Amino acid sequence: MRPRVVINVAMSLDGKLSTRERKQVKISGKEDFERVDKLKAKSDAIMVGIGTVLADDPSLTIKSDELKHKRLEKGLEENPVRVVVDSAARIPLTSSLLYKGKGRRVIAVSRRADPQKVIELKKIVTVIEGGETEVDLARLLDELGAMGVHQLMVEGGGTLISGLFAARLVDEIYTFIGNLIIGGKDAPTLADGEGFVRENDFSRLTLLEATQLGKGILLHWKVSPQ
Amino acid sequence: MRPRVVINVAMSLDGKLSTRERKQVKISGKEDFERVDKLKAKSDAIMVGIGTVLADDPSLTIKSDELKHKRLEKGLEENPVRVVVDSAARIPLTSSLLYKGKGRRVIAVSRRADPQKVIELKKIVTVIEGGETEVDLARLLDELGAMGVHQLMVEGGGTLISGLFAARLVDEIYTFIGNLIIGGKDAPTLADGEGFVRENDFSRLTLLEATQLGKGILLHWKVSPQ
Repeated sequence: MRPRVVINVAMSLDGKLSTRERKQVKISGKEDFERVDKLKAKSDAIMVGIGTVLADDPSLTIKSDELKHKRLEKGLEENPVRVVVDSAARIPLTSSLLYKGKGRRVIAVSRRADPQKVIELKKIVTVIEGGETEVDLARLLDELGAMGVHQLMVEGGGTLISGLFAARLVDEIYTFIGNLIIGGKDAPTLADGEGFVRENDFSRLTLLEATQLGKGILLHWKVSPQ
Repeated sequence: MRPRVVINVAMSLDGKLSTRERKQVKISGKEDFERVDKLKAKSDAIMVGIGTVLADDPSLTIKSDELKHKRLEKGLEENPVRVVVDSAARIPLTSSLLYKGKGRRVIAVSRRADPQKVIELKKIVTVIEGGETEVDLARLLDELGAMGVHQLMVEGGGTLISGLFAARLVDEIYTFIGNLIIGGKDAPTLADGEGFVRENDFSRLTLLEATQLGKGILLHWKVSPQ
């Protein structure tokens, strides 16, 4: 069964995830970091696009020792499965998420990935191959489901999220809106890519909850079925 | 005295004001339209950038007969002063806001504007000239203040708003966040332009109020003094 897909992002009021130089910006505060860490700990896998790996080099591990401990007590691995959507297998072998923290890693590549790089990756992680030039996201989710992933948390970036919306694969979204303006027509947003132009193609949402958190506001949305 | 600058925009959850083709999208509903009409009626002037005029051809008039009537009773003109920031004087003479509804119009141009077009514009509206290649926004606000404009409402687009933030001229923002994803790396957002990259250059906000309105949420922010 396909996993439940929960997107989590922090953005500025003008919808930016970082600056035009893709430099990470502190958008949220301590309260939101703790919430995100809990959401991670409750998820079976955490997914990002290769753009986010190249820009931020995140480890995608759980930060709280208590939360890690609780997972171990439940018989889970310390960290959820870390998944990178990386159509051309561009991930550097020195990326933090490949060596920091315990747990499984999955790199999803398409058929345009360099076969030599794929062989190297297969030595250290699980590689899922599919899609001609871009990873076939629906098929990838099916495979993650078959691996026992029930809840998949997606941390960005805008291109991956846009692809998930285009394929109608998103179930829920948490957006933390921070109290700042980053600006820039080339700065990344929650949903980049081509985008949609027809009324019927826009994903429609239902606001489940709005909570002031620190200096910003956390919005929790459900994606409406088509 | 410089007017109080109040930005009002409706955006999708991913921060887009319209599609990548700049086609207007219904982001909010009846409740928000009424709120915006009231905010307009309370303002002395309404400002947009030329991009918004070329894309949407808005009339920028007050829609409610009751609100127009109340303004007349107070000795005000039916509609607030309509202001277009149009550095190159590109506004078509057939634009709705030039002939629809009663009230004054101001077109702000820079010195790169075609002098012949400026002469034509001067026959029908007030033209304010200033700035070498781009309109000097601070000076424009001073001139609007001298004309008796105390509250200036700004309805977009992203380039004008970004310019106002860069010049530290914004006092308040209303953002209505609609329950949809528009997507697109080239779709316009609340603050486009170059954007900011250094921590000190981001405008900081204080959330004054969050109100669920129809299927979306209205956020009211104050811009923190630098």
